[in-house]
Amino acid sequence: MDSLSTRHLLGIKNITENDINLILETAKEFKEVINRPIKKVPSLRDITIANLFFENSTRTRLSFELAEKRLSADTINFTSAGSSVKKGETLLDTVNNILAMKVDMVVMRHSSPGAPHFLSNKIKANIVNAGDGTHEHPTQALLDAFSMQEKIGDLRGKKIAIIGDILHSRVALSNIFCLQKLGADVRVCGPKTLIPKYLTSLGVQVFENVKEALAWCDVANVLRIQLERQQLKYFPSLREYSLYFGINKSILDELNKKIVLMHPGPINRGVELSSDAADSSHSIILDQVENGVAVRMAVMFLLAQKN
Amino acid sequence: MDSLSTRHLLGIKNITENDINLILETAKEFKEVINRPIKKVPSLRDITIANLFFENSTRTRLSFELAEKRLSADTINFTSAGSSVKKGETLLDTVNNILAMKVDMVVMRHSSPGAPHFLSNKIKANIVNAGDGTHEHPTQALLDAFSMQEKIGDLRGKKIAIIGDILHSRVALSNIFCLQKLGADVRVCGPKTLIPKYLTSLGVQVFENVKEALAWCDVANVLRIQLERQQLKYFPSLREYSLYFGINKSILDELNKKIVLMHPGPINRGVELSSDAADSSHSIILDQVENGVAVRMAVMFLLAQKN
Amino acid sequence: MDSLSTRHLLGIKNITENDINLILETAKEFKEVINRPIKKVPSLRDITIANLFFENSTRTRLSFELAEKRLSADTINFTSAGSSVKKGETLLDTVNNILAMKVDMVVMRHSSPGAPHFLSNKIKANIVNAGDGTHEHPTQALLDAFSMQEKIGDLRGKKIAIIGDILHSRVALSNIFCLQKLGADVRVCGPKTLIPKYLTSLGVQVFENVKEALAWCDVANVLRIQLERQQLKYFPSLREYSLYFGINKSILDELNKKIVLMHPGPINRGVELSSDAADSSHSIILDQVENGVAVRMAVMFLLAQKN
Repeated sequence: MDSLSTRHLLGIKNITENDINLILETAKEFKEVINRPIKKVPSLRDITIANLFFENSTRTRLSFELAEKRLSADTINFTSAGSSVKKGETLLDTVNNILAMKVDMVVMRHSSPGAPHFLSNKIKANIVNAGDGTHEHPTQALLDAFSMQEKIGDLRGKKIAIIGDILHSRVALSNIFCLQKLGADVRVCGPKTLIPKYLTSLGVQVFENVKEALAWCDVANVLRIQLERQQLKYFPSLREYSLYFGINKSILDELNKKIVLMHPGPINRGVELSSDAADSSHSIILDQVENGVAVRMAVMFLLAQKN
Repeated sequence: MDSLSTRHLLGIKNITENDINLILETAKEFKEVINRPIKKVPSLRDITIANLFFENSTRTRLSFELAEKRLSADTINFTSAGSSVKKGETLLDTVNNILAMKVDMVVMRHSSPGAPHFLSNKIKANIVNAGDGTHEHPTQALLDAFSMQEKIGDLRGKKIAIIGDILHSRVALSNIFCLQKLGADVRVCGPKTLIPKYLTSLGVQVFENVKEALAWCDVANVLRIQLERQQLKYFPSLREYSLYFGINKSILDELNKKIVLMHPGPINRGVELSSDAADSSHSIILDQVENGVAVRMAVMFLLAQKN
Repeated sequence: MDSLSTRHLLGIKNITENDINLILETAKEFKEVINRPIKKVPSLRDITIANLFFENSTRTRLSFELAEKRLSADTINFTSAGSSVKKGETLLDTVNNILAMKVDMVVMRHSSPGAPHFLSNKIKANIVNAGDGTHEHPTQALLDAFSMQEKIGDLRGKKIAIIGDILHSRVALSNIFCLQKLGADVRVCGPKTLIPKYLTSLGVQVFENVKEALAWCDVANVLRIQLERQQLKYFPSLREYSLYFGINKSILDELNKKIVLMHPGPINRGVELSSDAADSSHSIILDQVENGVAVRMAVMFLLAQKN
């Protein structure tokens, strides 16, 4: 049987196209499982997974937890609120303590870019990066690719526009790595102040006008304006953002073409997407959420084989 | 087999007497289950239930969680603290996201009256209202009715007094609907400022004197003064409330009759109930808690058949 | 079969040497279980355990939760944040309410010394004290004794030094009771202001110089300076504490002898232990964590037989 080239899923940057394809193929099978009346398999019955969320999260944490339950894994949940992290313990000590309790796999979200990479050669358990600062969010990129393939088939040569706050987004970076490895043409669009300079070195072109980006692309992956992160230091106001970069139904109708609309959630309705766009037939936003569980099952199932 | 007339339990107002009787009959069987050495049944083994608590709760949440475990359901827990609700997501988006992960049933507490009703015709999952603002708390009313029947039999013609802060209580309203449908004579007692005007339209008479109410009734359901909600805007002081409406053992002894004392908890000892009353042989307060698990098992079991 | 002399594990003070030995022997078997590929046993399949953490905890709570999962118990988790404790309910009412839901065992952490003892003759469920204020932390003492025996065999006549903030430590007191019952010679070492006066009555001698303590002992159990508890009222500064009582590798090397280094965690690296000491071959700190799960399994397994 095929197997991953890695014991950890730290990011998309350091996995191969084969790895990506293996995960996406496996996710297809798990999507069938979770759509059966009996949604569970006993695959990871003897595996214990620790969900270590050093940063708040709702949907990602719930998605991982459900994926673990569907795989019949045992789980323990750790959130940093009220934990020994506050008591001055180092990250490595916290994780080593949890692993000493015979944990086989760690799903980890952390506000510091590189936190899971730092741990990866120090611990025996498999690590799944569930988001590290503004760096990578690999399972999001994989579920996005899965959802695109499901809608428009092979991504080779397809045109994908990532629209919004690229600078603060871990979703953008993981998406770019993933889609490029799958042969897509990825471009970004957003206010100049929210476009990082390193994009040039990745061969990613930039649209400054959202209508041009939409006219060009097969798929528009619209990112969330992270109100709680950037406090509008990088753009005048939400109102202006919405005016220049917000997408609504009339813009989509003007294009008069098939276009797939995606969003990693949670949506700021009326800011980056109007309600009539978010709820239109273009949108596959809820498919992304459903596929997230299947993709995370695939990732954890495949990593467990590398133990 | 009998089945409920509804896919959701949003409130007692919109279910039938048959529904109530079916739930209470089913709860009797589940009460036997949870009193066996092996307290579990595999009934909902293939059902996933999301507990969405947008408002804090201890006993109701634990009671639902235990009921779900006894039914062998898979569960995921969501509390609004630290969640995407804070990130500006709409309620419908939050719930739709969770449901896209293949959730079959939602148990929901929310501070806004009508929140579960709003969702009920927009989502496919069954909804159980676990308390919506000051509106309804249907499983509490059902467990109260169950506990009364267990103690005094058929409620037709029985006299039930609900005593305390009626205005801010979702327990009172659900109790009135439930007990009236079961044929009981329900009256309330409390300070004028804590009696809502709509009670007249429900045919509920008001006692202003707690001793008169106690002299009249077979069952006194004593509500909690919700310190954290009303901040005494509606009554001079706790001391005065206790003086005029508090119930103690000597008041009960003076009556020289059988009377059943109930309280939905948590009790403010020394305010609405003295300790000698709360711990007296009249009290069935802990039976209510035990019956809560059985009643909630019955509700979720019956709703799952309507999926 | 042997059985414990008690229905509760409230502290080490009131259990017998036989109890301790039975727990440690049983823990050996469970340590084998958790080191097998399939780490679970069905022993407590029909038992429901409530984890009541009225005070924050990470490692102890996770260790108990994992021990419960390995024993196949059903669990419910209660933390005081956002609970009815804030609504003015008494501790006894809160616990009685949870027990009325048919809970068989309570694992309880509370900031008040004696809280589990207060409940012990009022409730039917078995109680495991998971730390009560600065009083006792019996499972920590048992896992410490287990880890020492694993390393140096029978503790009779062995020399154990407990080093650090004895005054604020529940770990110290439980360790002293446990090790004395097992026949060890226990002494303490720390700043005068952090040594409680009652130690004399327990026959525990005090070292004022940490090097003397280390020169004397077979095992050094180094306690955490509880930054969050004592706010340095009892000692000038962390820097001075570290200078006079901190242990580093060069101090250990000078001794030129076998010595076992322990710490209940979380470690303040650079305060009570330097990193080169904590990570040295003397240290069995992570063994302690692993053994914690096995010891807690043993405690809960044995108490469940007394139901």
